[in-house]
Amino acid sequence: MVERLYPLCRSITGDGVRATLEIVGEYIPLKVHEVPTGTQVLDWTVPREWNIRDAYIADATGRRVVDFRASSLHVLGYSVPVSATMPLAELRAHLHTLPDHPAWVPYRTNYYQPEWGFCLAQETLDALPDGEYEVCVDSTLTDGHLTYAEHVVPGQVADEVIVSCHVCHPSLANDNLAGIAVATFLARALAERTPYYTYRFIFAPGTIGAITWLARNAERIDRVKHGLVLACAGDRGHLTYKQSRRGDAEIDRVMRHVLAASERPHRVAEFTPYGYDERQFCSPGFDLGVGSLTRTPYAGYPEYHTSADNLDFVSPEAMADTLAVCREAFAVLDRDRRYLNLSPYGEPQLGRRGLYDSLGGRSDAKQAQMAMLWVLNFSDGEHSLLDVAERSGLPFDTVADAAGALHGAGLIKA
Amino acid sequence: MVERLYPLCRSITGDGVRATLEIVGEYIPLKVHEVPTGTQVLDWTVPREWNIRDAYIADATGRRVVDFRASSLHVLGYSVPVSATMPLAELRAHLHTLPDHPAWVPYRTNYYQPEWGFCLAQETLDALPDGEYEVCVDSTLTDGHLTYAEHVVPGQVADEVIVSCHVCHPSLANDNLAGIAVATFLARALAERTPYYTYRFIFAPGTIGAITWLARNAERIDRVKHGLVLACAGDRGHLTYKQSRRGDAEIDRVMRHVLAASERPHRVAEFTPYGYDERQFCSPGFDLGVGSLTRTPYAGYPEYHTSADNLDFVSPEAMADTLAVCREAFAVLDRDRRYLNLSPYGEPQLGRRGLYDSLGGRSDAKQAQMAMLWVLNFSDGEHSLLDVAERSGLPFDTVADAAGALHGAGLIKA
Amino acid sequence: MVERLYPLCRSITGDGVRATLEIVGEYIPLKVHEVPTGTQVLDWTVPREWNIRDAYIADATGRRVVDFRASSLHVLGYSVPVSATMPLAELRAHLHTLPDHPAWVPYRTNYYQPEWGFCLAQETLDALPDGEYEVCVDSTLTDGHLTYAEHVVPGQVADEVIVSCHVCHPSLANDNLAGIAVATFLARALAERTPYYTYRFIFAPGTIGAITWLARNAERIDRVKHGLVLACAGDRGHLTYKQSRRGDAEIDRVMRHVLAASERPHRVAEFTPYGYDERQFCSPGFDLGVGSLTRTPYAGYPEYHTSADNLDFVSPEAMADTLAVCREAFAVLDRDRRYLNLSPYGEPQLGRRGLYDSLGGRSDAKQAQMAMLWVLNFSDGEHSLLDVAERSGLPFDTVADAAGALHGAGLIKA
Repeated sequence: MVERLYPLCRSITGDGVRATLEIVGEYIPLKVHEVPTGTQVLDWTVPREWNIRDAYIADATGRRVVDFRASSLHVLGYSVPVSATMPLAELRAHLHTLPDHPAWVPYRTNYYQPEWGFCLAQETLDALPDGEYEVCVDSTLTDGHLTYAEHVVPGQVADEVIVSCHVCHPSLANDNLAGIAVATFLARALAERTPYYTYRFIFAPGTIGAITWLARNAERIDRVKHGLVLACAGDRGHLTYKQSRRGDAEIDRVMRHVLAASERPHRVAEFTPYGYDERQFCSPGFDLGVGSLTRTPYAGYPEYHTSADNLDFVSPEAMADTLAVCREAFAVLDRDRRYLNLSPYGEPQLGRRGLYDSLGGRSDAKQAQMAMLWVLNFSDGEHSLLDVAERSGLPFDTVADAAGALHGAGLIKA
Repeated sequence: MVERLYPLCRSITGDGVRATLEIVGEYIPLKVHEVPTGTQVLDWTVPREWNIRDAYIADATGRRVVDFRASSLHVLGYSVPVSATMPLAELRAHLHTLPDHPAWVPYRTNYYQPEWGFCLAQETLDALPDGEYEVCVDSTLTDGHLTYAEHVVPGQVADEVIVSCHVCHPSLANDNLAGIAVATFLARALAERTPYYTYRFIFAPGTIGAITWLARNAERIDRVKHGLVLACAGDRGHLTYKQSRRGDAEIDRVMRHVLAASERPHRVAEFTPYGYDERQFCSPGFDLGVGSLTRTPYAGYPEYHTSADNLDFVSPEAMADTLAVCREAFAVLDRDRRYLNLSPYGEPQLGRRGLYDSLGGRSDAKQAQMAMLWVLNFSDGEHSLLDVAERSGLPFDTVADAAGALHGAGLIKA
Repeated sequence: MVERLYPLCRSITGDGVRATLEIVGEYIPLKVHEVPTGTQVLDWTVPREWNIRDAYIADATGRRVVDFRASSLHVLGYSVPVSATMPLAELRAHLHTLPDHPAWVPYRTNYYQPEWGFCLAQETLDALPDGEYEVCVDSTLTDGHLTYAEHVVPGQVADEVIVSCHVCHPSLANDNLAGIAVATFLARALAERTPYYTYRFIFAPGTIGAITWLARNAERIDRVKHGLVLACAGDRGHLTYKQSRRGDAEIDRVMRHVLAASERPHRVAEFTPYGYDERQFCSPGFDLGVGSLTRTPYAGYPEYHTSADNLDFVSPEAMADTLAVCREAFAVLDRDRRYLNLSPYGEPQLGRRGLYDSLGGRSDAKQAQMAMLWVLNFSDGEHSLLDVAERSGLPFDTVADAAGALHGAGLIKA
């Protein structure tokens, strides 16, 4: 999937995004939204749509020394059309390189100013003789649409968990084709049985896409109880969970718990107001319980936003590991509840309800019985099952199973 | 006292409890309560009363190979009557041993199911030849009563401190004859002068006894401000204080303070919903400020619930030490108050009230004067004397004495 | 300035205080207050005014062996007049020495009891032969006034910051001529541009002076938002900031931040109800956000309250350093605000407001841009700029500048 998505030239608008969503749609059904240029979205306006057919720099012999067909990174995102011939000295003002990594091509954009430009390897630039060059950017920047898509896994309740990943970056594998892939397979895994929450997956361009989604879903926001932004999900580094702005949102506690319990090496980071679309979900007016899961985080590796973030940079094992953690976390999140002990004065007599008998043949009977006592004692409307698991040191599943048994016996209510 | 109590066969009901309370009653006056079988108490029902005259396993020659007269532990608690002859193979299903400690006899009960059984040393069992054995349990399980007792040390106020210890275990010295003994002598010590609080000592069978007491004292619960469950009070291990469910109840703070100040090696444990009758007092509907003091805690030593918890396992010094800590803690608890500074704007002039003069001849005058400033500054209705002692680093008694002097001068009120 | 103030004989009342304030008044304009003896101030009464012309002990030859003219420390503060001849044995009851520091003269007072006495070096005393001595204290203790002064640096708002230093100690350089000097130059520095807050400097005798000020400014107290007591500001030790009683007052957070950011070795101490006039400002009825800045704190050096706290004991560099920290702290305090993001749903588009452009040419553009995102995200009415600086790890000034730019663009309001 990542290999198929890799060559496409994505940006915050245009046909590259549509082609990307079409491929994702082969794995999970998507509802695609098209929002017209000029639409007011929160403090922003949907920009004109950008499309590009070709772009190159050719030398005097007509040879393309920089060619968009070789990599979508070669053109500055949102370049306005240009067709001209100019000396190298004049052209340089439009060229972007990475002097520290002379073999790599940087990724650059300039969405909101009428510029054009090319990105290339420093060593390519160094090899160019002086002289006249033909430059061509065959792009269009016209009124059109911003495109994003949603996929919903219906749950038992209307309360939602959102999973968001940006789809606006061109040929960068880790950022964010890996995130798109993990989100897609996470959606399929969640649908295996009806979850408690409704899970909404959002595939949208960064910043303006999240802002557009927020603007068009104002009435839904109150139903969004938890969320996760997925990015940089495929490199070989350790996992990093960046907490929501609240820091103690349930998703924060669940992710911390699952990462610690899994004994994977990992890092938990405080919220910062830059990074990916958690910036928008966690802006102070919304302040949603939305964290962000990456492997090596935003701007944390030299290959970040360069041509070195290619298919070799990501691994199937790393993506599978990210997916596994997401599944573990949502398994906890989906079962976590606050219960109320309906018999809170003294311990209820478990024996006569068969809650001791039922455990007789099980090897983990003692742990299961302890879990019942913990759930009964802390089901005061304030403590969640995750609280009980953390306080008791018992596995979350044991605690949740105990709660299920007590609920079945009418001793607690949700 | 422990030696006299040791041979008695106690259970959650029956004459063993009555005989135990009779002996305790020789030390402190007790009010004994008899609650009829079938009485509804919270979620439970008072069970039938169990009494036992004799029990044994005899071999073909009539020799008693397991004999209740040798130790009350040999019979499974609440065994129904039986009189039969059966081969060893069939008898085994009713025998309980400790393979890991072949010389010890385990303590086992089965209060709420109609079973019978014997507890014996593994090495005794191993020495039994196959063949027919006569088994006899001469017990009665009939409508009767559950028995518990109270002793009250009247205080200056009706607010109560409860001290509870379970009296249902048969011949186990540390669990809980040591607790009974410490409680008894603590009650005598508190009566030496009229305490501030009213102290209520509860001698009741575990679980069902505490539940019965709670059920019959619903109107009193609001007056119970603090409490302590005493158990395993006599072994040679360090002290362990298990905090109340609240974790920051005044008794928790007092015990932590006193144990730390005393420089005894000790452990402070978080609340867990198993252990002794703090389970009931700290159930979420009551959530009383009741902690539990033991030496080695619940199930924390191999001798726990075996014949090795015998008179040698406990020491008078350990019991005296437990008693001393209880006295120190209650001395703090009983004097701890929140005062209100009646002259809170600037410092009041202590000199003209003779509060400097009065200190002139004392070697600890400087500390006493500091204590006055601390009490004045923090008597804002929110900080207790214990808060002041902890924050200032001054001894609690110095702080309490300063509060007394300031109260005498009319500068603070309770 | 310290050299000129040093010889004066100050006490809690009298002409020494007036002369001191006259010298301070040459640097900054002062409003001097005279409060009559007998005035009721909170729980206290303004005492009689004490003045002294001369005091000595002379031997049989008429030679002055202890002479007030040599040092104002030689006479017990508030000594009543005496003119007598007595044997050394009788005189000893009125003599105060420091046996552990035989060359030093102690500083002693007895404001509220009719006594007289002399302070002298132990070695001076040891050298005195037995015999008759003439003692003379030519003092007056009569109805008069308590004198204190204020200097105000007017700000943009009526909310006040108070800076207080005691002016009642005689010839002790560090305690508190250094504090008086730092306060004076701090006032001059603050006046260089109109500060946000109004800064009120209080030069008053210790304890009774602060109590008098508080009593006479009851209606002003609500406007006092922050404050600092300056004392022992000139010795060569590290800085110590003693927190207000609240512990989390804004002045506490500012001082902790500035001291930590400055990387000066320093200590932050908890509030204690003794020390200097923070005792009064932080009494529970007022509970003002007033901390105390010293170098080596109250009673923390052997020279404390002795003749060794002389001009050599303080250094201009140390006073300049204390002054610098005060200026840094007030620079933060004065700019610290809670803002409200007026565009809190998603990030506002900074680019179209020129907030990206305006940064283009600056080398710290990235940090400035980050600061804007931080200020926007945390301007929720709960977080101050100092909170943002601490959470982001960005310098306070960068954060405050970003807030200024955002305020200018109408994106946040105070």
